[in-house]
Amino acid sequence: MQEKIPVAVVGATGIAGQQFLVALDQHPWFRVTRLAASERSAGKKYLEAISDASSGAIRWYCEEPVPDLVQTLVVEDAAECDFSDVGMVFTALESEAARVLEPRYAATRPVISTASAFRYEPDVPLLIPGVNLEHAPLIRIQQQRRGWKGFITPIPNCTTTGLAITLAPLQAHFGIDCVLMTSLQAISGAGRSPGVLALDILDNVIPYIPKEEGKVETETQKILGKLVDHTIQPASFRVSATCMRVNVKDGHTEAVFVSLQTEGELAEVKRAMEAWGSEFTSLGLPSAPPALIVVSEDPYHPQPRFDRDLYG
Amino acid sequence: MQEKIPVAVVGATGIAGQQFLVALDQHPWFRVTRLAASERSAGKKYLEAISDASSGAIRWYCEEPVPDLVQTLVVEDAAECDFSDVGMVFTALESEAARVLEPRYAATRPVISTASAFRYEPDVPLLIPGVNLEHAPLIRIQQQRRGWKGFITPIPNCTTTGLAITLAPLQAHFGIDCVLMTSLQAISGAGRSPGVLALDILDNVIPYIPKEEGKVETETQKILGKLVDHTIQPASFRVSATCMRVNVKDGHTEAVFVSLQTEGELAEVKRAMEAWGSEFTSLGLPSAPPALIVVSEDPYHPQPRFDRDLYG
Amino acid sequence: MQEKIPVAVVGATGIAGQQFLVALDQHPWFRVTRLAASERSAGKKYLEAISDASSGAIRWYCEEPVPDLVQTLVVEDAAECDFSDVGMVFTALESEAARVLEPRYAATRPVISTASAFRYEPDVPLLIPGVNLEHAPLIRIQQQRRGWKGFITPIPNCTTTGLAITLAPLQAHFGIDCVLMTSLQAISGAGRSPGVLALDILDNVIPYIPKEEGKVETETQKILGKLVDHTIQPASFRVSATCMRVNVKDGHTEAVFVSLQTEGELAEVKRAMEAWGSEFTSLGLPSAPPALIVVSEDPYHPQPRFDRDLYG
Amino acid sequence: MQEKIPVAVVGATGIAGQQFLVALDQHPWFRVTRLAASERSAGKKYLEAISDASSGAIRWYCEEPVPDLVQTLVVEDAAECDFSDVGMVFTALESEAARVLEPRYAATRPVISTASAFRYEPDVPLLIPGVNLEHAPLIRIQQQRRGWKGFITPIPNCTTTGLAITLAPLQAHFGIDCVLMTSLQAISGAGRSPGVLALDILDNVIPYIPKEEGKVETETQKILGKLVDHTIQPASFRVSATCMRVNVKDGHTEAVFVSLQTEGELAEVKRAMEAWGSEFTSLGLPSAPPALIVVSEDPYHPQPRFDRDLYG
Repeated sequence: MQEKIPVAVVGATGIAGQQFLVALDQHPWFRVTRLAASERSAGKKYLEAISDASSGAIRWYCEEPVPDLVQTLVVEDAAECDFSDVGMVFTALESEAARVLEPRYAATRPVISTASAFRYEPDVPLLIPGVNLEHAPLIRIQQQRRGWKGFITPIPNCTTTGLAITLAPLQAHFGIDCVLMTSLQAISGAGRSPGVLALDILDNVIPYIPKEEGKVETETQKILGKLVDHTIQPASFRVSATCMRVNVKDGHTEAVFVSLQTEGELAEVKRAMEAWGSEFTSLGLPSAPPALIVVSEDPYHPQPRFDRDLYG
Repeated sequence: MQEKIPVAVVGATGIAGQQFLVALDQHPWFRVTRLAASERSAGKKYLEAISDASSGAIRWYCEEPVPDLVQTLVVEDAAECDFSDVGMVFTALESEAARVLEPRYAATRPVISTASAFRYEPDVPLLIPGVNLEHAPLIRIQQQRRGWKGFITPIPNCTTTGLAITLAPLQAHFGIDCVLMTSLQAISGAGRSPGVLALDILDNVIPYIPKEEGKVETETQKILGKLVDHTIQPASFRVSATCMRVNVKDGHTEAVFVSLQTEGELAEVKRAMEAWGSEFTSLGLPSAPPALIVVSEDPYHPQPRFDRDLYG
Repeated sequence: MQEKIPVAVVGATGIAGQQFLVALDQHPWFRVTRLAASERSAGKKYLEAISDASSGAIRWYCEEPVPDLVQTLVVEDAAECDFSDVGMVFTALESEAARVLEPRYAATRPVISTASAFRYEPDVPLLIPGVNLEHAPLIRIQQQRRGWKGFITPIPNCTTTGLAITLAPLQAHFGIDCVLMTSLQAISGAGRSPGVLALDILDNVIPYIPKEEGKVETETQKILGKLVDHTIQPASFRVSATCMRVNVKDGHTEAVFVSLQTEGELAEVKRAMEAWGSEFTSLGLPSAPPALIVVSEDPYHPQPRFDRDLYG
Repeated sequence: MQEKIPVAVVGATGIAGQQFLVALDQHPWFRVTRLAASERSAGKKYLEAISDASSGAIRWYCEEPVPDLVQTLVVEDAAECDFSDVGMVFTALESEAARVLEPRYAATRPVISTASAFRYEPDVPLLIPGVNLEHAPLIRIQQQRRGWKGFITPIPNCTTTGLAITLAPLQAHFGIDCVLMTSLQAISGAGRSPGVLALDILDNVIPYIPKEEGKVETETQKILGKLVDHTIQPASFRVSATCMRVNVKDGHTEAVFVSLQTEGELAEVKRAMEAWGSEFTSLGLPSAPPALIVVSEDPYHPQPRFDRDLYG
């Protein structure tokens, strides 16, 4: 058995950082060996860092238990870390902290980031496996331009990711004229600081999520764009998004109207969607689902509570 | 003070019937004098008819109390009623019962119906005050064709009503090419038999409501159509609807993309919408809201829980 | 018509302050003439103070609209206010701010407070109309001891208020040995800063509310205690409370087991509870409900969503 | 590897039956080889029996997928089944059907039942592993009295099960005087026919569940009773239960006040609870949790959403 690659998780005490810890626990390639967070947590063992001293409450937000391996790791101050002894850095930081700290880490190591700080830079690709790996060469440009040995690849906005994967086969087979999308987004997307108050969303729909619509529009066009002369040319079709918050824990639902350039029978469209990404999924990578897109004949599906855990 | 018009409510024990009772309580023009429901309730006083003998539970589903006036009215068997002594009949029946019973009542009296049974008949208008009262002459055709002294005017599907009111000023001022609508519908719309189970909608979105999308598309085109030669010519623009159920008690939210025939500045569009229906609302009718359409500058509104009770 | 008494509301931008504004709007005795909040809001008109400049969102948390009268009142800095020109001050402050500011206001004026800061002081009564107005003379002691012209009367914890009202007739008629209470508390009780996150309470019960159980136990014994020699002797029966949070917007539900000192028939108990407070409610005070305790024969009631607005 | 025991699941299309199918899938001892349900489903393959022909919807209510093995089993009519070729029968029937059908199956085979039909018969034990296996000899009495080769062992009410497990160590170590319990029960406990309507429980608590309180009281006393002279003598302590429904999908929360006969330090009580059932759990049976009772030091736990899946 091959040895696992040591990795660091930054922002490890927040909800997105905890999701990294759960996803990396038992991962066949990676092992979390270092944790970082704000100065306040620095110097404490992880389990202590997420405990409230006065009430005894544990601030752990995933339904899976705290992975054994990280419970006793000592949390470091994210602002003071040198990560040259790990193979990769996973960051879950607020946008402003990300703008300052991620370049420091990227100077020596690859950084996988949940923050939006670098998503819109011209030399930063938004890679989605099975969709646009042909944007990967942009990483080399990024390294040259910035003089980094590592690099930053941000994870796109989660609403965008689902949309872009769905649009990719339509763009490839039929061409896209226009995309009109309404999302019903889960509360987990808002995190915990400040997050969505129960008082605001119980028995309610909130029809607006700050900046979300612009992110979805810009990122979708970038992801489905073309890498031409060391630059991504955004896809030329228009994307218009209405993003709403609904009282669902996890799993965004999107209603998408797509106008295609060439007409397709429904069966053809279905076939194109189901076949999409088969070269990717057949690689058998860990964490890769058996299919990128599942087309349901049951009109009552997808439903977030039932289908969000499909293929993990 | 003028005497009030006596009216009957049929299907009075169900949720829609109870909403009629609440809406008609204290109404300046109408007074409920007769109640009808299924044979099972016939002969009981209303309060007894909605009580469960074994547990003592009251099956009353509105947050307002049971109106005093109806508590002791004796419920009649809807299949046996003659309503020639009241001025009007409000019916809240299942579609199949409506198809049989409403024509009997309409033979002598006007019938305001929540059922979809007659909505798609060519001689039945779907009237929305302030939107298409010019379809009212169709009632005369209906009476002649069917030999009725009364008539049936169904209340359109509630998702349609909100959509049609919003589209009316756009159609009048700019012309409409195409309408793409995604609705987030409340559970009250599904009623109670069977209604939506908590197990199905808690922490979830159900992306399908049987027959709803077709109803919205057909009814919207009919409401915004033109009365030509004793027939309604449906509006020619395309309507495509995606109707979903969300965990909200009352109040549907709709995200609508409209493609206009002539371009309009945002301010013009807003002005057209706010001005719409002012001739109607200025009549000062009871139950009429002060404005048909409220345009909010606050991107966080409308929200169903906060805005559903605006103007009652 | 008599002129209304001018009053001030402090902490007017928060959720409890807004509830004061709604409750005092249209009040036959009081008129809100001054508003105070933190320094950040000072100098702005109320409507501006609760608006978010960048998004246009209005931070108003009641379902009733913002009362017209207060929309243009200029908010003052609570730390700098002199209230000697109003008749009474309603405060909705965090406990620490209350400890500092309420004595300043009380030096000259009566202060009705939602904070717990002074609830446990021996010279401060927790008055509930219809339950323990015989504690009112303690106010005189408070004034003498502290050299105030005004005074502070805190509103008890809302879970306690419901419990104490219910226990009062049992204590009076039968004597109480022991009270075991489990509460299912609504999220509105937690306010908004930080409040309850939707992520924490959706599809969940939180079995602990910090400090709540101790407050309920101590306050209940104080409210139902006896004023003896210028001091309240707490009721001697034991109170044990388990306080939980459930996903309900407004309205706490409490399951209470009471062990009585003398046995009573169920009908006697019911009669005692229904009769309780009739001298008080028959005074016809504004905001007073027609009955203090409603005993339901329907086992399915009370339910918070249906019964929380009974008698406003 | 030993061959698995073939078993039947009756009532297989309902929610409780589906839970049996999921629990038995991959079970090391049992393999589902026969399915039965009402006449309406008889003769159809299972996947077809739970599909709605007109809409294509699948009526499957678990979050795990439909087990492969049962998808193509043909459903039989429960009223016509002979189960002498399987080793055991799991039944999930309505109480009335259970009263008729379970004795037929029990004539030849052991029946594990979710119904309450036989729970209160004097010769039917309510067995909870790790709590009262000493009641098992009653099965022999049952067989003799009724002339059965098989037998019926009903699964107790789920609210009772949690309560009885928790009380068992307290009874054994300290003796119990009195139990006062308030439950906050999940909607899954009500099943689907009719189940709990979203309209009734959204933003609400329902303070009554028909017959539940009596069941909890009687069953708890029976489970913790003693087998004396071929009969169970119910435990002599009083149990008083208040059972409420809250808007939680799975997992009941119970607040229990117990009065002990002999005083115990908190640490002793904790030790007794944690040690309880260790002889049972150390047997290493499949589906047995590593511990019967988990005592949490974190006051914010247990929470149904986080802790309901602990140990599966």
